[in-house]
Amino acid sequence: MDILDIGKLKRSGQSEKTRVKDVGERSIISVIHRLQAIVPMGYVGIGDDAAYLPPSDKGWLISQDMLIEDVHFRWGWITPEQLGAKAVIVNMSDIAAMGGVPKAILTSIALPGDFEVEAIEALYRGISKALDRYRAVLIGGDTVLSPDKFTLDVSVLGEPGPHGPVLLTGAKPGDRLFVTGRLGASYAGLVLLSHGIKWPSTSVSYRSVLQAHLAPLARVQAGTQLGPLAHAMTDISDGLISELRAMTRFGGIGVKIQAEKIPVDEATRDVAQEYGKDALDFALYGGEDYELLVAIPPSRVHEVEKLCLTCGLSITEIGVVTDTLGIHVGRNGEEMKIDDRKGFHHFAVDRDQS
Amino acid sequence: MDILDIGKLKRSGQSEKTRVKDVGERSIISVIHRLQAIVPMGYVGIGDDAAYLPPSDKGWLISQDMLIEDVHFRWGWITPEQLGAKAVIVNMSDIAAMGGVPKAILTSIALPGDFEVEAIEALYRGISKALDRYRAVLIGGDTVLSPDKFTLDVSVLGEPGPHGPVLLTGAKPGDRLFVTGRLGASYAGLVLLSHGIKWPSTSVSYRSVLQAHLAPLARVQAGTQLGPLAHAMTDISDGLISELRAMTRFGGIGVKIQAEKIPVDEATRDVAQEYGKDALDFALYGGEDYELLVAIPPSRVHEVEKLCLTCGLSITEIGVVTDTLGIHVGRNGEEMKIDDRKGFHHFAVDRDQS
Repeated sequence: MDILDIGKLKRSGQSEKTRVKDVGERSIISVIHRLQAIVPMGYVGIGDDAAYLPPSDKGWLISQDMLIEDVHFRWGWITPEQLGAKAVIVNMSDIAAMGGVPKAILTSIALPGDFEVEAIEALYRGISKALDRYRAVLIGGDTVLSPDKFTLDVSVLGEPGPHGPVLLTGAKPGDRLFVTGRLGASYAGLVLLSHGIKWPSTSVSYRSVLQAHLAPLARVQAGTQLGPLAHAMTDISDGLISELRAMTRFGGIGVKIQAEKIPVDEATRDVAQEYGKDALDFALYGGEDYELLVAIPPSRVHEVEKLCLTCGLSITEIGVVTDTLGIHVGRNGEEMKIDDRKGFHHFAVDRDQS
Repeated sequence: MDILDIGKLKRSGQSEKTRVKDVGERSIISVIHRLQAIVPMGYVGIGDDAAYLPPSDKGWLISQDMLIEDVHFRWGWITPEQLGAKAVIVNMSDIAAMGGVPKAILTSIALPGDFEVEAIEALYRGISKALDRYRAVLIGGDTVLSPDKFTLDVSVLGEPGPHGPVLLTGAKPGDRLFVTGRLGASYAGLVLLSHGIKWPSTSVSYRSVLQAHLAPLARVQAGTQLGPLAHAMTDISDGLISELRAMTRFGGIGVKIQAEKIPVDEATRDVAQEYGKDALDFALYGGEDYELLVAIPPSRVHEVEKLCLTCGLSITEIGVVTDTLGIHVGRNGEEMKIDDRKGFHHFAVDRDQS
């Protein structure tokens, strides 16, 4: 429950670029929450032994994700402000995937000694902006020195929808499969970054996919709207195929998808073409899209259609749940070969993770 | 919400010492929870986008602490099993400090490529033992590759006591100050480790203080018993002086402590003497004791005394809250000079953190 005191840091800084090692771990501790909105009544926030979440007759959802420098991101590719926001958003996406609404986060951060204090401020500005967008608050965490890499571990707490959490499993044969937004754009952005193209670029297509990768959104509103209609729901963080596998892992079901129906936008197609890649691969295996994958029983499909018309929800039907096992993707009347080794992590072009 | 699949790892291991890099991040994922107790009805555990905590009319407490190799611990000094247990316990101690009962944890773990799979198993055996002791469960987390140091970030969720969370602040002039257990032993253990003495040693004193450092306990029962009587409560993780400062930071109060009353056991005195140190310094500045510091109004002191007699609670009165600012420690009729720079981190003998 220790949080950095930027004010103190600044006062004690000698040079223009103040570094974490110049000020020390103990003197670093206390007020990043100055950058944050005031925690609502009923919560206990930063400064005590533990944070407190008020009673909720719906219970609480909680998710935790760790990001490490040079494994999950590179400082040359993403700014501290973008990283702070993205770390929050990817966790909120897990809450959205359960049909819930994010309410509070905790951040554990490990700072290398030569990390610039100004970058910490930018990081928490990004965290704060992401929180503000979804009306959530920072209630605690931990701040430590790192002997090597920058590490950020975020926990997010959210309230489930009125009917409780919407699980990953539960899809039934006959359910129709929908995805929100567009797929593959984030991976297209990663391809650009790995080829030395930096945010912000001057090309409209480039900006669009770089934005998808560096500044994704969490589909919280869509999750609360679709959740009550869904048999099963998850967010697409590891690529569509990987999520379809997870969704059908139990229950003796499979899926049949039409490749042509998968929403891949023009910017993603442009980038794929430029680098001699298949844009569909980006959508199927790329990952980090943070869109929702939803199984809707046929009887409620008309309600989804109504949501599209009345709420401006961007959602596309891509296939159907079957009682035959396996992931089947049809393309131009033929069945595509699915390569499970092409998961997000193995598909990555120039990323240095395994 | 990804957790390692030890079974799969073992099957895919070629040599006796299977390492994380031999099996890869993606194939590592799924069943550390085999080592864990089954999550109670009403919770959603590992495997979905987010974990779910059932409704509680008391709300939930949450705390998060990050441990990094060579910053917070050294592998030569502590076993993976001890580390796993300690990581859970230090978080549970934060819940105990709010008068709450820990119920569930999430673990984010970053594994270097050459980390042994057997060590992961030992780590989670330690986590599991700590959970079992307090009847709590593992409900989720994240597992990632680390480019360098081993990192473990634990979140713990707990239910507050019947009267809600017991805060760090709230002590009033006239309140009597109590601490549970003994202080300084953990630091004495750290002194031994920094001088090359390893667990388990053959000396009774050594074993006692090494145990205090490597395998601390969380004062959950004491917290639930003392919480309802207390104006303020916290756990002693950073040394008594540091916690007294935190407790008196707001509210225009101070404290008066009697050095002779501070519970420092014989084993700690033995080690301090052997290394030419003052055992009282260990208790005042050492940290990592995870005992509770409690401010009790005079009208309820007799209830604390009754708890000692009927519940075997080990608790010692060490001083009083005053309406004069500052931390005053009397020793042999004179006032000791308090050195605030002697915090846990700066006092450390041979630790390599700042």
